[in-house]
Amino acid sequence: MTNKQNRATAISHPNLAFIKYWGNQDDRLRLPVNSSVSMNLHGLQTQTTVEWGENLEGDTLILNGNYETGRALERVSAHLDVIRERLNLTMRASVLSANNFPMGTGIASSASSFAALTVAAVAAGGGNLTERELTTLARRGSGSASRSVPSGFVRWYKGDSHETSYAESIAAPDYWDVVDVIAVVSGQHKAVGSTEGHQSANTSDLQAARVAGADERLRVCCDAILARDFASFAEVVEMDSNLMHAVMMTSRPPLFYWLPATLAIMEQVRRWRADGLQVCYTLDAGPNVHCICIRKDAEQVKSGLKVLSGVLNVLTAPPGGPANIIEHATE
Amino acid sequence: MTNKQNRATAISHPNLAFIKYWGNQDDRLRLPVNSSVSMNLHGLQTQTTVEWGENLEGDTLILNGNYETGRALERVSAHLDVIRERLNLTMRASVLSANNFPMGTGIASSASSFAALTVAAVAAGGGNLTERELTTLARRGSGSASRSVPSGFVRWYKGDSHETSYAESIAAPDYWDVVDVIAVVSGQHKAVGSTEGHQSANTSDLQAARVAGADERLRVCCDAILARDFASFAEVVEMDSNLMHAVMMTSRPPLFYWLPATLAIMEQVRRWRADGLQVCYTLDAGPNVHCICIRKDAEQVKSGLKVLSGVLNVLTAPPGGPANIIEHATE
Repeated sequence: MTNKQNRATAISHPNLAFIKYWGNQDDRLRLPVNSSVSMNLHGLQTQTTVEWGENLEGDTLILNGNYETGRALERVSAHLDVIRERLNLTMRASVLSANNFPMGTGIASSASSFAALTVAAVAAGGGNLTERELTTLARRGSGSASRSVPSGFVRWYKGDSHETSYAESIAAPDYWDVVDVIAVVSGQHKAVGSTEGHQSANTSDLQAARVAGADERLRVCCDAILARDFASFAEVVEMDSNLMHAVMMTSRPPLFYWLPATLAIMEQVRRWRADGLQVCYTLDAGPNVHCICIRKDAEQVKSGLKVLSGVLNVLTAPPGGPANIIEHATE
Repeated sequence: MTNKQNRATAISHPNLAFIKYWGNQDDRLRLPVNSSVSMNLHGLQTQTTVEWGENLEGDTLILNGNYETGRALERVSAHLDVIRERLNLTMRASVLSANNFPMGTGIASSASSFAALTVAAVAAGGGNLTERELTTLARRGSGSASRSVPSGFVRWYKGDSHETSYAESIAAPDYWDVVDVIAVVSGQHKAVGSTEGHQSANTSDLQAARVAGADERLRVCCDAILARDFASFAEVVEMDSNLMHAVMMTSRPPLFYWLPATLAIMEQVRRWRADGLQVCYTLDAGPNVHCICIRKDAEQVKSGLKVLSGVLNVLTAPPGGPANIIEHATE
């Protein structure tokens, strides 16, 4: 009895920001204070099926095999409201979502989750929207989800309205053979989630100065990606990560995401680079260290990381493709 | 044949800044970009004897039993030039200096060294200067040496000229029974010394914002000391330390002074305070963690620190007195 025209499945990858998103101009619309740039992480993905149903009494969410209620469902349902409004739908939806990377890896799943949810929900609802508009809708669920919609290396323009804060690909996944080698030092959930963290950014005396230089760092970073200039890339990526964590640790109250092992890995990466390896680090709002390197150096970086004290696991991800519909019932 | 009227011996303590000095408005005069406040560290001291000699061909320096040449002697000799100019002396001096704290504790000796050198050299040269002027002269050798001249809790006014950049006591050593419990995690020399570090401060995008808030933090910190208000004190002292290290790690090139153990101790201190202990941390340009606590909690903090991984040694220092002449040959 299911109306199969109302169902679609999408996959999407998490993304790693090289120039970070930290703090909003508008919390409700998730308009960021600065533009950012990232790469999608191939091999890590969220797969989400959305089915709109005339007879459903409410939205439901099955996440990694478990029926979710409470805040997880509320956030998904609020995002479905945004999509319902855009597509003029009143139906409720059942959402089935799973990540192929365990929660315990400390890799944020909100970007890939809301990108996949958006793309699947719009397709299932019969919407035929541009990629640009899909990035703006995904942004409403989780800011960085906008960057998981386009392919490869992605720039998210901060904009000043819902329509102008969108993301687009600046280079395809195979444009530059860099790899993200992720040193997992904790599988714990973040003590302070990103949504709250973004709201705390303005409590740091240093946030305005970080933001003031962001456009220039973004320009340098995009130029370095397009020129495949690893030395310039490494310098600006590490600086941008240091700046974000400087803001975090001077917020009120201070947010310290680093563990002792985090610091040891960062120093090791700087030493490897001084010794000639093309590798640099960047950290999200968590203790795991993303070591970006040229593919030919990836095995050496990986085996170097594995023997460091405090490293629980090492994952490797080359640049990934866009959020993609993999099944669309059209009966 | 020694002219004993030309000899004096002084002792001086290192000091721990609660509101930090980082960066100069004028490198030659060592005029800082912001005012600072500190406490002298009783029990740790430099003892310095200066003897001016008509027949000496050059300045000499014996430091901790070794004849020094090269940069250490040059820096002392340059400071003696400042004192020679002030006192209208042309004689050279022999300087004998020793610290009772090993170099290997990672505790900066430049503040106590230049405070003791200044006070001894002026007394030996027959100068009768005010404490205020002595603080300005000491500042020329090492900025923070100005804070080791007065007693107890000391405020150093940034000023805008040699004469107006001076330090004075805001409270005697026994005014507040706090103790500095120092977790030594490395005895290594600093990779980047303070003089170079100060010069790098302006290369951070965050320095201007740190400086902009420094007057307000200084006011809050001095008020907290005078009111013996540990909660306000702890909050502003940790924030000021975090701000300085945020500037350091975003300088070009970045300066990371923290070791993994440093980070672990900082987190432990925050946890202890959350559990009701009156303790907070601050770090200088090095990895050792100064844990400031109320005297009654000092033993508990000390034994807690001793069992932490990476802690090599724990020292304890209550507030100390001024730089002081202990011997003045008047024959």
